[in-house]
Amino acid sequence: MKNFILLNENAIYFEANFSCDNVIFINLGADKYFITDARYTIEAQEYTKNCEVIESSDLIKTAKEILKKNKIKKIVFDPNDFKYSTYTNLTSDLKTQFIPKRNFSKEKRIIKTDEEIKYLKKAAKLGRKGFDNFAKYIRKNGFNQTEEFLHFKAIEKMSQAGKLQLSFDPIVAINKNAAKPHALPTNKKLKLNNLLLVDAGVKYKRYCSDRTCTSNANFENFSFKREQKFKNKKHQKIYDLVYKAQLNAIQNARSGMKASQIDKLTRDVIEKAGFGKYFIHSTGHGVGLDIHEFPNINTRSDVIIEDNMVFTIEPGIYLPDEFGVRIEDTVVMKNGKAIIL
Amino acid sequence: MKNFILLNENAIYFEANFSCDNVIFINLGADKYFITDARYTIEAQEYTKNCEVIESSDLIKTAKEILKKNKIKKIVFDPNDFKYSTYTNLTSDLKTQFIPKRNFSKEKRIIKTDEEIKYLKKAAKLGRKGFDNFAKYIRKNGFNQTEEFLHFKAIEKMSQAGKLQLSFDPIVAINKNAAKPHALPTNKKLKLNNLLLVDAGVKYKRYCSDRTCTSNANFENFSFKREQKFKNKKHQKIYDLVYKAQLNAIQNARSGMKASQIDKLTRDVIEKAGFGKYFIHSTGHGVGLDIHEFPNINTRSDVIIEDNMVFTIEPGIYLPDEFGVRIEDTVVMKNGKAIIL
Repeated sequence: MKNFILLNENAIYFEANFSCDNVIFINLGADKYFITDARYTIEAQEYTKNCEVIESSDLIKTAKEILKKNKIKKIVFDPNDFKYSTYTNLTSDLKTQFIPKRNFSKEKRIIKTDEEIKYLKKAAKLGRKGFDNFAKYIRKNGFNQTEEFLHFKAIEKMSQAGKLQLSFDPIVAINKNAAKPHALPTNKKLKLNNLLLVDAGVKYKRYCSDRTCTSNANFENFSFKREQKFKNKKHQKIYDLVYKAQLNAIQNARSGMKASQIDKLTRDVIEKAGFGKYFIHSTGHGVGLDIHEFPNINTRSDVIIEDNMVFTIEPGIYLPDEFGVRIEDTVVMKNGKAIIL
Repeated sequence: MKNFILLNENAIYFEANFSCDNVIFINLGADKYFITDARYTIEAQEYTKNCEVIESSDLIKTAKEILKKNKIKKIVFDPNDFKYSTYTNLTSDLKTQFIPKRNFSKEKRIIKTDEEIKYLKKAAKLGRKGFDNFAKYIRKNGFNQTEEFLHFKAIEKMSQAGKLQLSFDPIVAINKNAAKPHALPTNKKLKLNNLLLVDAGVKYKRYCSDRTCTSNANFENFSFKREQKFKNKKHQKIYDLVYKAQLNAIQNARSGMKASQIDKLTRDVIEKAGFGKYFIHSTGHGVGLDIHEFPNINTRSDVIIEDNMVFTIEPGIYLPDEFGVRIEDTVVMKNGKAIIL
């Protein structure tokens, strides 16, 4: 693809080695233009690679001038990346034809470089440290705290009190609330032997970590370890099943498989045990600069899994009005196999 | 306006008395349709007013069916509210003409009801409480803390450790960094008699508060009060000037004025003192469900100010590489005059 235009901050970072919250990036053959306002030009000049940095108080106007000056006939854009109003402003009075290609930047980013994998590993390590510190807090002070407060504490511990950016707003859910895959925290309090689900991640050099743990709130011995002893037998049964499904996928995923085959590795285990209808989402998603990238690991995806792809494996079982269990790790494909980051 | 379609969560809340992060709202004359997925239908049925709640796994498809079934010829949408891809999906194979009207929901919300003002007052009160608790923290432990950590503490104190939603990510900036109106927190540490700028707000029943304080970091007596004694004489001079400009606008703003006349009330004071070119933004903006609503208080706005409008008055002076001062309050127009919320 010779000519394309981007607005998305992460997509631009991938191309330019720098990004900010007000930029238009244009790629015309070998020429790259980074159009931004006065707040960002100094840093853009320092950090972008092979880009012409253009300062502008009207980014769209400047972008149009560049397209006109270079007599560009066709340029690719992502229709998910543009507001309707931006599209109409940008394309009015221009002869350039705008060709929609959904997710073309995410497609480019599906196989990670070794450097990107290094950053993703470091993010995963910092994420685990956050989980460990959050577990320490729960052991000492977690009893009788509300979901709302524990949610805040998850932010504190994961971010190291503001030093790290989070990949997304963490999910902290107790019992029934854990049965909702995207639960909002309530004033429900954590009690002895409740089931606690935590889904959280941090960023390192803009690259995301993503992990979900489901644990038994026994306080003294509380941890986010994969080996969990639940007081409630049904909790234990469902947990063991989800864990078995996850391990099956991690151990048997191979480069060369279709993404749908990896989805099948978790889903078959859960379906055979009779809980298929409670596994209501896909097995996983790619992780990189965005928390949701390619490949999607679901029942329909024909994408062939290759080395250096990075994605989550996160089966879950959600029993409405009872509880939910999800276990999620992020893996990288190396030498044909999945390795937990 | 009889027929319109909305995607924006706050715009929908205003029409339906309930909202969520996956909904299409369609208004056809007296009929209101709230289309959402299975996660939200129970709450939507309980809390929406005068809406038909429709559960759907494909919101766009359902929206198109409603437009077809009702043979709708024209419908208004906000081009800032739609992604290009959503627009093309929604309009394909439909005879309905989509008429773009920018910000039509914000236009409707420019004059607040007494109930909305009650919520905005409560949000402002909770916001002040957050500032007070943050000041208490700084008095005790603020010395030598980094901007990053103070930024985290601002989130903790403003949100009451997760109980309240924030209106926006707070700004916490020391000296030079305060000269950038939208500074990101760094590892720079707060020292005695530094200048500290804090811009933060919280939500009550979805309505936002917004306030900025600039203070002298004297620790023992640290506060966010408007009366500030700065050790540094230039800090004091600029502070007094910004404060004078802000008071001039609060005391002399009247219903019936143009918004640009209120902008002039702050700008004239700063320009007469010779600092006009360092006041690089508008005087204020409306506040409501969104943190930025109408009226805009700037040099160009002809909007006539009316009772029950709610907006910020926030002049600032930014001396690059030295420091910046901004003082912001949110006011409501009542009986022709501005009252701080």
